[in-house]
Amino acid sequence: MIELTRQVEFSASHRLHNTALDEARNLELFGICNNPHGHGHNYVLDVTLRGDVDPETGMLLDLNRLCALLEEQIVRQLDHKHLNHDVTWLEGRVTTAENVAAAMWERLAPRLDGKLYRLRLYESRQNFVDYYGPAGAPVAR
Amino acid sequence: MIELTRQVEFSASHRLHNTALDEARNLELFGICNNPHGHGHNYVLDVTLRGDVDPETGMLLDLNRLCALLEEQIVRQLDHKHLNHDVTWLEGRVTTAENVAAAMWERLAPRLDGKLYRLRLYESRQNFVDYYGPAGAPVAR
Amino acid sequence: MIELTRQVEFSASHRLHNTALDEARNLELFGICNNPHGHGHNYVLDVTLRGDVDPETGMLLDLNRLCALLEEQIVRQLDHKHLNHDVTWLEGRVTTAENVAAAMWERLAPRLDGKLYRLRLYESRQNFVDYYGPAGAPVAR
Amino acid sequence: MIELTRQVEFSASHRLHNTALDEARNLELFGICNNPHGHGHNYVLDVTLRGDVDPETGMLLDLNRLCALLEEQIVRQLDHKHLNHDVTWLEGRVTTAENVAAAMWERLAPRLDGKLYRLRLYESRQNFVDYYGPAGAPVAR
Amino acid sequence: MIELTRQVEFSASHRLHNTALDEARNLELFGICNNPHGHGHNYVLDVTLRGDVDPETGMLLDLNRLCALLEEQIVRQLDHKHLNHDVTWLEGRVTTAENVAAAMWERLAPRLDGKLYRLRLYESRQNFVDYYGPAGAPVAR
Amino acid sequence: MIELTRQVEFSASHRLHNTALDEARNLELFGICNNPHGHGHNYVLDVTLRGDVDPETGMLLDLNRLCALLEEQIVRQLDHKHLNHDVTWLEGRVTTAENVAAAMWERLAPRLDGKLYRLRLYESRQNFVDYYGPAGAPVAR
Repeated sequence: MIELTRQVEFSASHRLHNTALDEARNLELFGICNNPHGHGHNYVLDVTLRGDVDPETGMLLDLNRLCALLEEQIVRQLDHKHLNHDVTWLEGRVTTAENVAAAMWERLAPRLDGKLYRLRLYESRQNFVDYYGPAGAPVAR
Repeated sequence: MIELTRQVEFSASHRLHNTALDEARNLELFGICNNPHGHGHNYVLDVTLRGDVDPETGMLLDLNRLCALLEEQIVRQLDHKHLNHDVTWLEGRVTTAENVAAAMWERLAPRLDGKLYRLRLYESRQNFVDYYGPAGAPVAR
Repeated sequence: MIELTRQVEFSASHRLHNTALDEARNLELFGICNNPHGHGHNYVLDVTLRGDVDPETGMLLDLNRLCALLEEQIVRQLDHKHLNHDVTWLEGRVTTAENVAAAMWERLAPRLDGKLYRLRLYESRQNFVDYYGPAGAPVAR
Repeated sequence: MIELTRQVEFSASHRLHNTALDEARNLELFGICNNPHGHGHNYVLDVTLRGDVDPETGMLLDLNRLCALLEEQIVRQLDHKHLNHDVTWLEGRVTTAENVAAAMWERLAPRLDGKLYRLRLYESRQNFVDYYGPAGAPVAR
Repeated sequence: MIELTRQVEFSASHRLHNTALDEARNLELFGICNNPHGHGHNYVLDVTLRGDVDPETGMLLDLNRLCALLEEQIVRQLDHKHLNHDVTWLEGRVTTAENVAAAMWERLAPRLDGKLYRLRLYESRQNFVDYYGPAGAPVAR
Repeated sequence: MIELTRQVEFSASHRLHNTALDEARNLELFGICNNPHGHGHNYVLDVTLRGDVDPETGMLLDLNRLCALLEEQIVRQLDHKHLNHDVTWLEGRVTTAENVAAAMWERLAPRLDGKLYRLRLYESRQNFVDYYGPAGAPVAR
């Protein structure tokens, strides 16, 4: 068993805002991230697959296929976009890194033959989240 | 003579759009960077000063003073903001890296005792501009 | 369940030296890291929390609160300090990355509502440790 | 229990090619990575050990010993080499990152007192694999 | 006047070897870089243009045009190639970073309206060259 | 004419302190950098040479010779040392990056056949100085 990670980048803007709450509460919860005109990031996404190596190719998965999938499902969808306004599959979600990573999981997992293991989404070098899907994360004891 | 560089970062959104032109021309000129809701970056700014070292301190300039100035004049002004809508000193400019760097120069140079030598503004690891002020850049021959 | 990581940096000096041992043994154990006047690093600390996302905010934890805590408990305590001489909560410990990370855990874990999952402490790009607390690390089989 | 990681780098060339298959099938499987004259990378290897801290030294393992081992067993073996032609212990393997990491494990694990926990091999910033040995990887649920 | 830099990457192999010299002299001159099967790098190229900003667009040059040019003239030519064997415009040159940068200049300068100012070619984080064309480099005094 | 840069790293501690001044003045000038026990950095030094390419080798200078020189004159002298106490050629200087770079220049220039062009010394990613020697820096107009 091995893990293979491919990294992609996209530049997008977002605003942390829960449309179910009033303005004062939004400002209290999200501070400067609630700025009405939004702000932005050079997002970096590490997509990690887990599985067995094919003895014929020495690969977990055809990397070209993975690259094409991420280009189509992530980069073209999100690059140079506003995450709150331009992306139908993020509608109704507060666009925190936590929620965006979970939405990406829903989009990528069915297309990766059960091999998707982890998504790491960086908003910046200083901030990132790791998501292992609804079924769970590494067990520690 | 020595050069001293201090780096700061800010996360902002912008839209490349010239309000003097119609929509079709803007789209033609700026492509995906003209997306109406904008997009964003983790901008990085390298501020380079040039001058002589003070023999008492061994420093070109008090670094704490420089840090405080950049926090006040750059980071608080631009971090978590939309460059087109939230920054009075960028009004009326197309918010390309070239133009934003020139506007930063106007703001910083008068506060740095004639020592400001270069601004390098990264939109991403792949794209950056260097601006040496209106008086000119290094001479090559 | 999701993991959120926040990174902070501090510049400090240290000396690897066990005061319970004599000089010759210290030199043998620690080599150039035992240099009497010490040496230093730009340390980088990745603080990872683990837990459930709050549906109202889309966040694991208020990031501003986490940033303030790390500023107060890590950066102000260690930045521009000598780890052997200037930090009461490191007294009596050999200041290896392993021991410093464990001491940081004791300091941070009680302030993070049971959500602290991992500390990664880089001495340099080439050297780092991961600590998961006294209760254990991810189980592998 | 703690994890200690040491990073080393080497520059090498390789060609993805399975000698048991014909040329057309190799080209189909590996695309541009099958280029007959090969291509190359600045490989980066993160070697992670796991174990208990020695109370006398505050260290998981003597870092100098680990550095010397990696210099001898990895860097001198692979730096400025062609992985398909110059390395006896890679003969007969398709030189994917997955297979090279597994071969490194066989070489390093017996020399590290049962402490080797993970090898992360980067071909580039965008591509890397994690290998935890034949016995298994972190359990997720 | 402003400078705009765009960065591209490619993975290639090469061998330092002067075909006009015998094997012993080549080995003496180039050491491990003369390894017959070659070695490789993740090369990074920073292409810097210099000129005036177009007041209508706020740009030195259409960045999309520059990206397309670099993709066509650099990345497709060199990525996943052996610089000694697969690139007609490098034939007869020792493939040092110095010589490769000069060959890139000949290829790019005529396509960039006299705006090409500098090429910085990284073989690795530790090694790079800067080339300003045959007409000269910044004057220092 | 071309420029060749080689990067080296070293971990050291220092204290900003002018022994000709009293404690109160030192504290006023240097703030937290005047901490009596010092602090430290992972310093990075970029050494840039400038000159013509040797047509036989395609190189500005034998890179192996440059690497050996930097190992001997910089890394062995400064790595795991306290710049104020352990380095005879820094005695009597306030150990700011500005002064350390100038002292390095005096040490390296006579050993580099008149080819030394620039030293860039990073104290951290956020702070660095560029020094072009006593004769001068690039002319801008």
